[in-house]
Amino acid sequence: MRRNIKLIIEYDGTLFNGWQMQPNGRSVQHEISRAIEKVTKCKQVKLFGSGRTDSGVHAYGQVANFITESTIPSEKFSFAINTHLPHDVSIISSHEVSYDFNARFNAKNKTYKYIIDNCPNYSPIKRNYCWNIKDYLSIEQMIIASKYLEGQHDFVSFCSSKTDIKTTVRTIHSIIIQKTGDQIEISVCGNGFLYNMVRIIVGTLIDFGRNKFHPDHMINIINSKNRSMAGKTAPSKGLYLQSVIY
Amino acid sequence: MRRNIKLIIEYDGTLFNGWQMQPNGRSVQHEISRAIEKVTKCKQVKLFGSGRTDSGVHAYGQVANFITESTIPSEKFSFAINTHLPHDVSIISSHEVSYDFNARFNAKNKTYKYIIDNCPNYSPIKRNYCWNIKDYLSIEQMIIASKYLEGQHDFVSFCSSKTDIKTTVRTIHSIIIQKTGDQIEISVCGNGFLYNMVRIIVGTLIDFGRNKFHPDHMINIINSKNRSMAGKTAPSKGLYLQSVIY
Repeated sequence: MRRNIKLIIEYDGTLFNGWQMQPNGRSVQHEISRAIEKVTKCKQVKLFGSGRTDSGVHAYGQVANFITESTIPSEKFSFAINTHLPHDVSIISSHEVSYDFNARFNAKNKTYKYIIDNCPNYSPIKRNYCWNIKDYLSIEQMIIASKYLEGQHDFVSFCSSKTDIKTTVRTIHSIIIQKTGDQIEISVCGNGFLYNMVRIIVGTLIDFGRNKFHPDHMINIINSKNRSMAGKTAPSKGLYLQSVIY
Repeated sequence: MRRNIKLIIEYDGTLFNGWQMQPNGRSVQHEISRAIEKVTKCKQVKLFGSGRTDSGVHAYGQVANFITESTIPSEKFSFAINTHLPHDVSIISSHEVSYDFNARFNAKNKTYKYIIDNCPNYSPIKRNYCWNIKDYLSIEQMIIASKYLEGQHDFVSFCSSKTDIKTTVRTIHSIIIQKTGDQIEISVCGNGFLYNMVRIIVGTLIDFGRNKFHPDHMINIINSKNRSMAGKTAPSKGLYLQSVIY
């Protein structure tokens, strides 16, 4: 009997060239596919991820699915696959879903988290897991500016490249910015994200945190539909795919 | 004029074979010494650390000192040395101290922190920075048992090997155990530590957290003066040298 298995996946993106399988370089998709092939003794497993993550981007809750004829109980797949995975990726859970479930096309909402270490000292221990910004950042200005991004907008100003996507309109449900000690966490929940969208949003919010612009200026950036109006793309190492909702 | 410069150092121990310079393998002491030699244009700088840390052990506040005839302002050494250091080690600050100061022999107290990820799931993102323990741990039992370790004791039961040290008597000023979410932090402050002492204390406290023994049993472990009575040595990756007081 063919079953569709959904996986929740955590990985440290530091030593990966991102999620997507590619001819050169180590990918999360390749590592997991190979592990599933060993577990199911089946060649050429197709693993569908909720979306790509770039090199250096981490995930606490990436979602993927695959079809199998293996008789292994659904919940046991996580243990079985983990025995064949390297230490920087792990299956958190596995369970059976309806046959027509697709981790990419059925994704309703995604939440990304971005971590900034707002501290005058560079931290070797945190170097692969956050973006160190030494200057003072006004959280208040960042929060006010972020409010203009919530809702449905054309986010083309926050997109690295125009590929053959149908539309650059997306809905951001919420942006939550919190500071604990030196650490600033920016959580962005939306129905979909353009290429580098979260990292460009973060880079832009940093400009507001530095009081480079009045918070109202965020409206101009959105309306310009011009990538060069937004801030720089924040480094990948501070970004985490937190969860995908179906 | 010869000056004595004190450095506060942070490092990620993951890719180091510990603090101490050695013929084979990468050491923190070697990396910093080489960087100082470049900055001061002086061959064979002697760098005195507050003490060794093992392979995999991290530091937020390692302290070291060196003698130099360089005219670089004391506070500028940190910036200058950092330009020659790899990304997993950084000088937090530098300043001049009296000529007879020695980072090792003048150390009065040290604080180590140990981080446990008490969670049923192994975390790839945290894998090099904590010890994952899946079983339930009673923090209360650990705290009660830890109280017997405070004060002056012969800690020979908590020492990996008997080298040519004069005495195995040390004083632990405090052990603080706190749980936040899945994370348990154990901070140990003392006037000196035997080889692997903090890691054996942590391994032993875990046995109490698992209710393997009544907390009173800690007295038997201390009095036995027998390494085999204590728990296993906790892995190095969860250990952090937090600070050294002079």
